[in-house]
Amino acid sequence: MRLGRIPWINCYPVYGAIDRGLVPVPAEIVTGTASELNDLLAAGELDLSVVSAVEYARDAAHYHLLPDLAISCDGPVHSVKLFSRRPVEDLSDATVLLTASSRTSVLLLELLCRHRWGVAPRLATVRAEPSDLEALGGFPHEAVLVIGDAALVLDARQQYPVQVDLGEAWHSWTGLPFVFAVWAARRDADAGRVREVHERLLASRTWGLEHLDLLADQAWATTGVGRQVCRDYLADLDYDFSYRHLAGLTDFFRRLAADGLVPDGSLSFITAA
Amino acid sequence: MRLGRIPWINCYPVYGAIDRGLVPVPAEIVTGTASELNDLLAAGELDLSVVSAVEYARDAAHYHLLPDLAISCDGPVHSVKLFSRRPVEDLSDATVLLTASSRTSVLLLELLCRHRWGVAPRLATVRAEPSDLEALGGFPHEAVLVIGDAALVLDARQQYPVQVDLGEAWHSWTGLPFVFAVWAARRDADAGRVREVHERLLASRTWGLEHLDLLADQAWATTGVGRQVCRDYLADLDYDFSYRHLAGLTDFFRRLAADGLVPDGSLSFITAA
Repeated sequence: MRLGRIPWINCYPVYGAIDRGLVPVPAEIVTGTASELNDLLAAGELDLSVVSAVEYARDAAHYHLLPDLAISCDGPVHSVKLFSRRPVEDLSDATVLLTASSRTSVLLLELLCRHRWGVAPRLATVRAEPSDLEALGGFPHEAVLVIGDAALVLDARQQYPVQVDLGEAWHSWTGLPFVFAVWAARRDADAGRVREVHERLLASRTWGLEHLDLLADQAWATTGVGRQVCRDYLADLDYDFSYRHLAGLTDFFRRLAADGLVPDGSLSFITAA
Repeated sequence: MRLGRIPWINCYPVYGAIDRGLVPVPAEIVTGTASELNDLLAAGELDLSVVSAVEYARDAAHYHLLPDLAISCDGPVHSVKLFSRRPVEDLSDATVLLTASSRTSVLLLELLCRHRWGVAPRLATVRAEPSDLEALGGFPHEAVLVIGDAALVLDARQQYPVQVDLGEAWHSWTGLPFVFAVWAARRDADAGRVREVHERLLASRTWGLEHLDLLADQAWATTGVGRQVCRDYLADLDYDFSYRHLAGLTDFFRRLAADGLVPDGSLSFITAA
């Protein structure tokens, strides 16, 4: 059994107790970005993993979702931001750089540009992890979409006059939470063992949500982003997966399907006990 | 194995081939209103059944949904209507009679009254099947919510100056389809046999959607409602269960949960093969 893990702060509350050996998990842990983990899951190299929400939708027929576990915001998410030199309404024909690290935020930005802001920028995909931020400045651009820890780091530098939090933009558009990440298992993975790992992930989350101060300290030490910023960031994230999160996720998926950006489909979960 | 069936027109496309023996189903069929079937399902007298959507939400921990099958509209539904003597904005402190046949439409009306129309009528529950329509006139009221075949029959009588189609009202409020009915199985039912019945229901639906003219003729003969009205009614209903239907269903559930009308929860499906 191989389980995917993203090393970003937003995953600390789910993996923190597993990382510390406080909750043993009967699986080998593989660490990568959301995009990397999705490719490994699709290739059969992972049995289950946290994946960017839209990656599930792209290949739903091969996966089951794990219930009761997701990463969402219901308003600002802090770590998914468009940093821009112009107001978003003026981005038509401007070059917008997009992080290569996750497709979900990129497609959310595409929906917002098309249906909310009415602009059609030129899009170009670039690497935008924290170690790439210096190189980013070398690419001509009017705006850049950065996610995860890199967004928190870039935010602290105050280099762009306009910053749009995509969690907030989605919420003001739809009134719904936005689900950035879900946990998916391959349909051909052993159901009993998937269920066991799922239980451990939920147990680890319970520990994590009780130790957000400690996790914020770890985040501060790892990224250099201020301790309170890390603490506020973790507090605004939501790791449940109830009706309103499902409403946010499927509203996102139906909009993507209507634009032909993902195949139409349905949600399939491992069956709860 | 016992399978619930509602004898209304809107279920013909799913049960038509089963009723005619064209698609054999390894289950005893039990016929009743949505409310009756839900009580029987809750009591363990049925293993699976079509149920009013909100009945699933009231008792989600005991049920799994069947995938790819639901009854929805994406705009007018024709058969869920508030018949009123006044504009809906003037219904505060007026008496509104509510059908006892399904809780879903009643809760949808409550949400619309509270959050869309800003009115607080007095509500009273009454029987409102086709055979009850004469007796309805004997109850003092300003408006009455009638659903299913009875709504089609009452519609044809033109007795109320104001008619609000609740499918249309939901769509203009949220932009989403409204899911009126789903199929749910008890979690303690045999999974293999539930899957088998599910396959037969899907096969019967395939036949039904290919024979809507014949089913409209049957509806006309059964209810006396005009043949073309029955045909248009069936054409506007949707029996799929994809992202946009899930978005509509969970948006409804999250609104109900926010108002304390159903417990917060999540969707659980039988696992697709």
